[in-house]
Amino acid sequence: MKCRVCRGPAVIDVPRHNANFCAEHFLRLCRDQTRKAIEAFDMIAPGDRVLVAVSGGKDSLALWQLLHELGHTADGLYIGLGIGAGPKGRPNDEVGYSDVSGEHVRRFAASKGFRLLEIDVREEHGFDIPTAAAATRRVPCSSCGLTKRHLFDRAAIDGGYDVVATGHNLDDEAAVLFGNALQWNTDYLARQAPVLPAGNGFPRKVKPLVRLTERETAAYCVLSGIDYQVEECPLAAGNRHLGYKDLLEQAERRSPGTKHTFYFGFLDRAAERFRSGGEGPGGELGRCAGCGAPTSEETCAFCRLQARVTGVGDVPVRITSTAGVGR
Amino acid sequence: MKCRVCRGPAVIDVPRHNANFCAEHFLRLCRDQTRKAIEAFDMIAPGDRVLVAVSGGKDSLALWQLLHELGHTADGLYIGLGIGAGPKGRPNDEVGYSDVSGEHVRRFAASKGFRLLEIDVREEHGFDIPTAAAATRRVPCSSCGLTKRHLFDRAAIDGGYDVVATGHNLDDEAAVLFGNALQWNTDYLARQAPVLPAGNGFPRKVKPLVRLTERETAAYCVLSGIDYQVEECPLAAGNRHLGYKDLLEQAERRSPGTKHTFYFGFLDRAAERFRSGGEGPGGELGRCAGCGAPTSEETCAFCRLQARVTGVGDVPVRITSTAGVGR
Repeated sequence: MKCRVCRGPAVIDVPRHNANFCAEHFLRLCRDQTRKAIEAFDMIAPGDRVLVAVSGGKDSLALWQLLHELGHTADGLYIGLGIGAGPKGRPNDEVGYSDVSGEHVRRFAASKGFRLLEIDVREEHGFDIPTAAAATRRVPCSSCGLTKRHLFDRAAIDGGYDVVATGHNLDDEAAVLFGNALQWNTDYLARQAPVLPAGNGFPRKVKPLVRLTERETAAYCVLSGIDYQVEECPLAAGNRHLGYKDLLEQAERRSPGTKHTFYFGFLDRAAERFRSGGEGPGGELGRCAGCGAPTSEETCAFCRLQARVTGVGDVPVRITSTAGVGR
Repeated sequence: MKCRVCRGPAVIDVPRHNANFCAEHFLRLCRDQTRKAIEAFDMIAPGDRVLVAVSGGKDSLALWQLLHELGHTADGLYIGLGIGAGPKGRPNDEVGYSDVSGEHVRRFAASKGFRLLEIDVREEHGFDIPTAAAATRRVPCSSCGLTKRHLFDRAAIDGGYDVVATGHNLDDEAAVLFGNALQWNTDYLARQAPVLPAGNGFPRKVKPLVRLTERETAAYCVLSGIDYQVEECPLAAGNRHLGYKDLLEQAERRSPGTKHTFYFGFLDRAAERFRSGGEGPGGELGRCAGCGAPTSEETCAFCRLQARVTGVGDVPVRITSTAGVGR
């Protein structure tokens, strides 16, 4: 097995590129694919300040490092979600999932000298994800996603960042697309894109890893010595999204390149067809009475979640510690 | 387990309808679903003469009987494709797949008194599917589908039928849609529908079983005593279409109703979006110099296939025996 680039011994095969690579040229492939995505979709302009949503997993740590390698100014934001070690992710006395994840992020940031912001939802908003899931009686991923989107957006706006970058990879995006296509959820299909432009009080949001699979981001971390949280979130186990990933992975194994064709074929040939005639949010949004975030209702979904879970009204959102050192 | 309709002992559960049924009410469900599909998509008008494409499998025999139960005038056409008994479907001295299939069709037609037409491709066109596959070096399903479409269309036009009905069920249609969506093949997505209208020298083509899964058509046959070819075509084993069916079946098991939502959601909310702006065949077609079939080229794809496989030019297409008795 020889590297496609240098003909030296290869350490990884990438069937969808029908090629093998040595460590050096695999890492270069990852950078090239990330640069290509950023350029193709105008994700980040020269001089943009990027806020990277970091979870401690392979994708977000790889993304953070790749953005630095590509010369971007990228700070990280870690949100402590209070997910515990129990079989259902409940907080308990042991060191929990979120604690371990946070440690990975802090060690990584410190070792690289990247600037890290942190928000702890328990400390700052009085709840955690397991409690929110129990109070809302919905799957935990629902309140978790809502919380993260809200706090990342807010932190980016407050911190003067031009863009929020998330570590969604090709597997993530293809699985979301698969779920939306299975139900022909035309509103979601209309909005699915690797870039959401800024507007209406929201920052621009970008997914620079859409040209890399999760196997590739994992290999990027391993080969560049990034120590990441390898456990899947205990609250996500068995969810629909992972089911869709599993089905697409089976299709990929039968026919390498399936995920790429599915996702980029959608962007090339179908996405536009769902945008025309869709309803979309439309019009100017108002501002949340509690926190000032853009919303179409009087109070934003995050403040309503918080009020429901804690039983008390809104408390101000603020960003506290900035662990890690400036770059 | 009780029948949803009569509370008597049930013989089958149908998770996607969240219900169980006794034999009588399951058979009624199948008729109702078939009638509903025919009416919803204007498949068959009163007095239409229907030509049913019968293969000897569960779907086509169920369809033929259901159309009679619903009061339609429906004759069958069986095409002997010359698929043998060997591991790769090659003809050999044993009784082959096509021979067994034909026997099922003939016995069924005779027992019901349905009128059956037959075409044997070896006798009438000098080739069979295994030979065609070898000569074209493509998957056998490719020349098989081409041959069947051509001969069914031709027989319907020549025989004065208003419509060709095929036994494609919900699994078939959902799997085809899945394959087209995975590649965002917009031309195929634009044309995928349970009814193709007549025009340009082609007969109307309809799929009245789109509201029944293959598990349901199999149960319909078992419960109404139809003896069908239970073997899958040996040439189809491992093909892409079966792979897509398998993936959708996994999704269905996790979430009953997935296939129905996927297929009918497409028809309701997405299909139209692929029709506008598509290229389509467009314009009047010419007539094949060999057989007179509609084609955009000088000779139709079937005559070209035949010439390539047999090494000789076109031979006239004709319908020979009409086994079975008139109704």
